Amino acid sequence: MFIVTILGNNSAVPSNGRHPTSQIVQVNNELYMIDCGEGTQMQLSAFEIKRNRIDHIFISHLHGDHFFGLIALLNTYSLLHRVQPLTIHCHEGLKEIIDVQLKHSGAILNFELLYNFLPNDDSVILQQKDVTISVVQLQHRIQCVGFIFKENPKDRKISKEKIDRYKIPISALLSLKKGFDYIDENGTIIDNQLLTQNALPSKSYAYISDTKYLPELAEKLKGIDLLYHEATFKKEDEVRAAETYHCTTIQAAKIAALAEVKKLMIGHFSAKYKEQHLDEMLTQAQEIFPNTILSLEGESYEV
Amino acid sequence: MFIVTILGNNSAVPSNGRHPTSQIVQVNNELYMIDCGEGTQMQLSAFEIKRNRIDHIFISHLHGDHFFGLIALLNTYSLLHRVQPLTIHCHEGLKEIIDVQLKHSGAILNFELLYNFLPNDDSVILQQKDVTISVVQLQHRIQCVGFIFKENPKDRKISKEKIDRYKIPISALLSLKKGFDYIDENGTIIDNQLLTQNALPSKSYAYISDTKYLPELAEKLKGIDLLYHEATFKKEDEVRAAETYHCTTIQAAKIAALAEVKKLMIGHFSAKYKEQHLDEMLTQAQEIFPNTILSLEGESYEV
Repeated sequence: MFIVTILGNNSAVPSNGRHPTSQIVQVNNELYMIDCGEGTQMQLSAFEIKRNRIDHIFISHLHGDHFFGLIALLNTYSLLHRVQPLTIHCHEGLKEIIDVQLKHSGAILNFELLYNFLPNDDSVILQQKDVTISVVQLQHRIQCVGFIFKENPKDRKISKEKIDRYKIPISALLSLKKGFDYIDENGTIIDNQLLTQNALPSKSYAYISDTKYLPELAEKLKGIDLLYHEATFKKEDEVRAAETYHCTTIQAAKIAALAEVKKLMIGHFSAKYKEQHLDEMLTQAQEIFPNTILSLEGESYEV
Repeated sequence: MFIVTILGNNSAVPSNGRHPTSQIVQVNNELYMIDCGEGTQMQLSAFEIKRNRIDHIFISHLHGDHFFGLIALLNTYSLLHRVQPLTIHCHEGLKEIIDVQLKHSGAILNFELLYNFLPNDDSVILQQKDVTISVVQLQHRIQCVGFIFKENPKDRKISKEKIDRYKIPISALLSLKKGFDYIDENGTIIDNQLLTQNALPSKSYAYISDTKYLPELAEKLKGIDLLYHEATFKKEDEVRAAETYHCTTIQAAKIAALAEVKKLMIGHFSAKYKEQHLDEMLTQAQEIFPNTILSLEGESYEV
């Protein structure tokens, strides 16, 4: 299971019923939060997401629409007696922002709050059981990164019928899944390929947060299964997009095409656009990259 | 016109559809915000309150459920091109909290942000055309105040019929409204009482934020027209209330009775209570002080 749930798809300020940025990435039983705009904890409740299953929060950059909801979420975790540690993956300034608020409110969190400060280069920041998360550097008005979630290589699939035929003991199955050959007590080698089938492919999700148009990103996103790319503006607003270090629908779609991703999801819509504008934005992107979808709040998308 | 609109009536964390604390006090054309929990700007939009008419925000204390929405509101004001100054009446720590967030987000507000740090005694903090606002010190786990809004003395009412009979010129009306006698060109004095009627009484609203039970408050709240008093807990939870420096329904009602206020409004309900508990809380308070109402989100109450 590898799905992305959208909690907020708006940029800058809440408007037209849309919320500032936040997403949940679920990989099997693990939940990860990306960005945490104001009201994210209410969105978690509204969409019945189990917030206690989140142990890692990734903040792409320190513009308010991507982190203003974090301190409130931390406060709520503490008031509701969270005990397990929580790690924030963020730029260093966020620690000062959290610390000063805890200090003045006299709050002591019940749980351990850990920080993993983001590097200045493109590198892996977290290795988990089922997924590996890395950053790519973007170009925005302040330091900003994207996050790539890549499933770890999966186990090869055991062929039950072959296992029975070759009388393979249960104790050997794990090493077979990992691709090792089977050696029986007499030293006879049975080739792994005879006993297993290829593993399912490892899927990948890339979250490209606020950035100016960066064609060189495409190389780093080659073959991504689901690419979320900000498309703050319609194509008509290309000048405004460039001024604010954002992208248009067309630019997001060009990146998707250059990177040959499987699917593109656009979001971070300018607060000025109403509901009906979003359909227009989708159409614009689809002219360049047909397999494009809108990120809609409360919806979950399979990677 | 003197009304209070409730934006959030919950304590600690958002729950059961309720939001953390915020209120709007409207005195004629002036809007004042008291406290600004997470999501307050969304509530302003939901209830169609003209946020640009707010020039003063009062923050009772620095627990997150009373201020986490402020930085987001400031950010929105700036992004939506507010130009007129805004004054925050608060404890000093809040400036550091705002400053550090502006610093790391690289934001420069378009408008002037002024601070009026709250005093440690009970005193007037703002004199406006129609209303005077003062603080009363409360006792909570950190420094905390209540706010009292008192309408300034109103003009005496001109009796049109008398004005005509005594042939009073229009130029003299303002001083008559203020209570001065009329002196005609011959030096004849016409007593003000002959020409005017008593002014309407000046109404008062008191917002008693988070506090332990403080009977000595009653003296300071004598004759208040509408008293908002926190009633975080039901009477059964009196021990928990004392531990957390909060009040029960009964304690809030006792203050109202001791102070002989006209009406009591209770709020800041514990996040654990569901809708139906609020009715029970109302009944508890009414047993002590019959003219009690609940503060309900989106509702406006005349002072």
